[in-house]
Amino acid sequence: MSIRLGELATRFGCELIGDPDVVVRRVASLDGATGDSVSFLANPAMKDELLATRAAAVILRSDDAADSPVGALISDNPYATYARVAAALHPEPTVEPGVHPAAVVAEDAEIDPAARIDAGAVVAGGARIAAGTWIGPRSYIGPGCVIGAGTRLVAGVTFVRDVIMGERCVIQPGAVIGADGFGNALAPEGWIKVPQLGGVRVGSDVEVGANSTIDCGALDDTVIEDGVRIDNLCMIAHNVHVGAHTAMAGMTGIAGSVRIGKRCMFGGKSGSVGHVSICDDVVVLGKCMITKDITEPGTYVSSFPQELARDWKRTVARVRALGRLFDRVSKLEKS
Amino acid sequence: MSIRLGELATRFGCELIGDPDVVVRRVASLDGATGDSVSFLANPAMKDELLATRAAAVILRSDDAADSPVGALISDNPYATYARVAAALHPEPTVEPGVHPAAVVAEDAEIDPAARIDAGAVVAGGARIAAGTWIGPRSYIGPGCVIGAGTRLVAGVTFVRDVIMGERCVIQPGAVIGADGFGNALAPEGWIKVPQLGGVRVGSDVEVGANSTIDCGALDDTVIEDGVRIDNLCMIAHNVHVGAHTAMAGMTGIAGSVRIGKRCMFGGKSGSVGHVSICDDVVVLGKCMITKDITEPGTYVSSFPQELARDWKRTVARVRALGRLFDRVSKLEKS
Amino acid sequence: MSIRLGELATRFGCELIGDPDVVVRRVASLDGATGDSVSFLANPAMKDELLATRAAAVILRSDDAADSPVGALISDNPYATYARVAAALHPEPTVEPGVHPAAVVAEDAEIDPAARIDAGAVVAGGARIAAGTWIGPRSYIGPGCVIGAGTRLVAGVTFVRDVIMGERCVIQPGAVIGADGFGNALAPEGWIKVPQLGGVRVGSDVEVGANSTIDCGALDDTVIEDGVRIDNLCMIAHNVHVGAHTAMAGMTGIAGSVRIGKRCMFGGKSGSVGHVSICDDVVVLGKCMITKDITEPGTYVSSFPQELARDWKRTVARVRALGRLFDRVSKLEKS
Repeated sequence: MSIRLGELATRFGCELIGDPDVVVRRVASLDGATGDSVSFLANPAMKDELLATRAAAVILRSDDAADSPVGALISDNPYATYARVAAALHPEPTVEPGVHPAAVVAEDAEIDPAARIDAGAVVAGGARIAAGTWIGPRSYIGPGCVIGAGTRLVAGVTFVRDVIMGERCVIQPGAVIGADGFGNALAPEGWIKVPQLGGVRVGSDVEVGANSTIDCGALDDTVIEDGVRIDNLCMIAHNVHVGAHTAMAGMTGIAGSVRIGKRCMFGGKSGSVGHVSICDDVVVLGKCMITKDITEPGTYVSSFPQELARDWKRTVARVRALGRLFDRVSKLEKS
Repeated sequence: MSIRLGELATRFGCELIGDPDVVVRRVASLDGATGDSVSFLANPAMKDELLATRAAAVILRSDDAADSPVGALISDNPYATYARVAAALHPEPTVEPGVHPAAVVAEDAEIDPAARIDAGAVVAGGARIAAGTWIGPRSYIGPGCVIGAGTRLVAGVTFVRDVIMGERCVIQPGAVIGADGFGNALAPEGWIKVPQLGGVRVGSDVEVGANSTIDCGALDDTVIEDGVRIDNLCMIAHNVHVGAHTAMAGMTGIAGSVRIGKRCMFGGKSGSVGHVSICDDVVVLGKCMITKDITEPGTYVSSFPQELARDWKRTVARVRALGRLFDRVSKLEKS
Repeated sequence: MSIRLGELATRFGCELIGDPDVVVRRVASLDGATGDSVSFLANPAMKDELLATRAAAVILRSDDAADSPVGALISDNPYATYARVAAALHPEPTVEPGVHPAAVVAEDAEIDPAARIDAGAVVAGGARIAAGTWIGPRSYIGPGCVIGAGTRLVAGVTFVRDVIMGERCVIQPGAVIGADGFGNALAPEGWIKVPQLGGVRVGSDVEVGANSTIDCGALDDTVIEDGVRIDNLCMIAHNVHVGAHTAMAGMTGIAGSVRIGKRCMFGGKSGSVGHVSICDDVVVLGKCMITKDITEPGTYVSSFPQELARDWKRTVARVRALGRLFDRVSKLEKS
């Protein structure tokens, strides 16, 4: 896609310093940019790369504009403006409607004529798929699933059953939504499976990463609100409720019936035990496991930074000897 | 399914307080229940919901029966009884036998006429699939696999090769059983792949969660005994042996050659380093990594609960300063 | 495959103690071996099994040769020699070339006549697949992917787009390579997707485990160098660079833009936060999360071994009371 800098400035509300008639065709990193590229500066540590860039223009804050050796698109939020410019220059492929001859669609599935069902996909009876939705190759849509307009299942995605999803979602390959939750009752003869009868309700503008899983609810539904972002290899157990615009980095795991507020952020490998409640605007740092309710916004953590093994071994030994140390200090205080 | 309360009481060995001729059609949560629903009380914290429920009857312990405003099905183990009642009211769909025209089955695979092979499934030569077994859409059954009666592979499941599985198992979507274990020998030119020649033996009544993996053994088989429950995104490495009725919550990871006893429970994100032995009846709490043998039943843990980042930073600094603190206390003791 | 011991000795550079004309047909563990098997001793703890073995010959170090009750193949690196002998006795199945009639291959994909495309696989336009490469059942190869000679995608593998892969790689089932990285910019209306425009470049002799994910780069490529070994359920985020011959055990997670050196080893469930740099020859023990640059080779760790829950509870309480303990010691020092 070719766009004039002046048009980018108008469309995305930036002040342009430079020639509005320069045409750009792509986005690039500061040091990978050429004369037809737009780049961005969001991180002050990249100032050296800015000074040397050959981009046509750089999206940056007004404070940094004087340092740009090339054109400048001034934005209060350069990374968000960059995201919009990148989407304009590199648009998603248009969805060519139709059902591939190597797809298998049940007779009573409702496929909008403007939807696309790719090769190897299987759509079960009772599923409903809206206009502009793209069911990628080798995906499976089970009974009772309803998928809103403009949603894309990239490839090899599985919606087991009763997944109700909004518009403009992106589901990466290997994601499994609507599998049975882990419900088991202990009886003398062993575990008895507790039937998982709820579904999954997913809002609009949600992204789910590759090989992540979101289980159906036991009785009520599992709920993912609008704008939630879930990275790869995450697990959302049955009856979890994730508030709008919450983001979870890779390998986050949320156990059953957890209620998460809006605009929370979970670092990689973080998670929560079951049945806790986490309020809005909580940041959970990487690897931290939440073990009790959080009622105050803030940043939470529970992990140690790495040490050399020989040093750490001593640290562990000292932590284990803390009981004796407390006793020794008490004895000193008494004497 | 419609069932009289009296029949439920008889079938599942409960005392019924209430009208045996009331007909119920579904299970529901205490507060979501209507007059045709059965609910349950397993958690005393739900007493308020019990008092307000509109269910036809509630499954509960005899101690709680007086608090039920509606009918009561008395059980020593309400959750297990609930699981059985739910399965009776919401039976699994019957397996309609047959091979879908869009499945690909090798000529020398043995498919029982009462088995079902769904659209997009591929079954390799030499596989044997018993009566009542349901190979879900887009699943792959590799050479040498033998699957017992009444087992269900929900969708998109991969059995790579030489997986011998019992009866009535449920394998959730995306699970991969029988992939190569992670065997690598270091040589001057880099890693050499160690051929993985064993298979996987899985007992009966086993459930494996979505996107979990169970690798084949290096020489001998990886073994999962009867009644084991494995949640989503778990990993069982080569030559692990999991004892009967052990349960693993999501993201549990067991490294190679670990031997786990019967009736163990692993919390979410827990795991074990390789080559350790864990006795029967061990509970491993969430996120705990087992690093040495466990020879006594009990509950094991190694993780810290979350703290606010500013508090935790101080905690970490103090832990790292412990060496000096021990020295200071020794000095005080000498003086 | 049948091979004389003498031929194994010659081919793999071992000294043979024993009859060169004995024919062996398989490898086996020391205690599972029969007279047509070769076994190995790499771990001194297995000496008892060595003394009782019925193998035809055992691969071992010269120091251990006197303890072998049967033939001995002397090697400085018995495990690597074993890996080579096992591959000779149990060769991978030959790739029978051709496109299965139930595969779907785009007209403008370039498939070498000596490649194999299995049932249910889908290959998109513009993909190029070299001789001897085996695209297993139900795999998907997206646009712009180029796969070198002799590589095997076992089954159900997804290459989303623009994956450039070398020769002799093995990709286990469910792996997803080239999905979008987790790029999101925060704007007043919520998260905006940052288009992910880079690809993934993978060297030769790389193995990727079941259900692992390697994301495409945001602008530049994600890079996996030659000889890297990645186990199951690992995640490599966008723009990570993994140096040659680095190995990662199961559930390792590397966040975006991390640069990892050559010959590193990551234990199970370990990982790194984003944007850090890890030098060559670093060992990260299981569950350790790297949170800052590592510039010196060595072994790093940050996790505690398990304790009984009642002991651990006290340890956690003491760690949290450390602030007061430091104060008490200071007070003692002053008095």
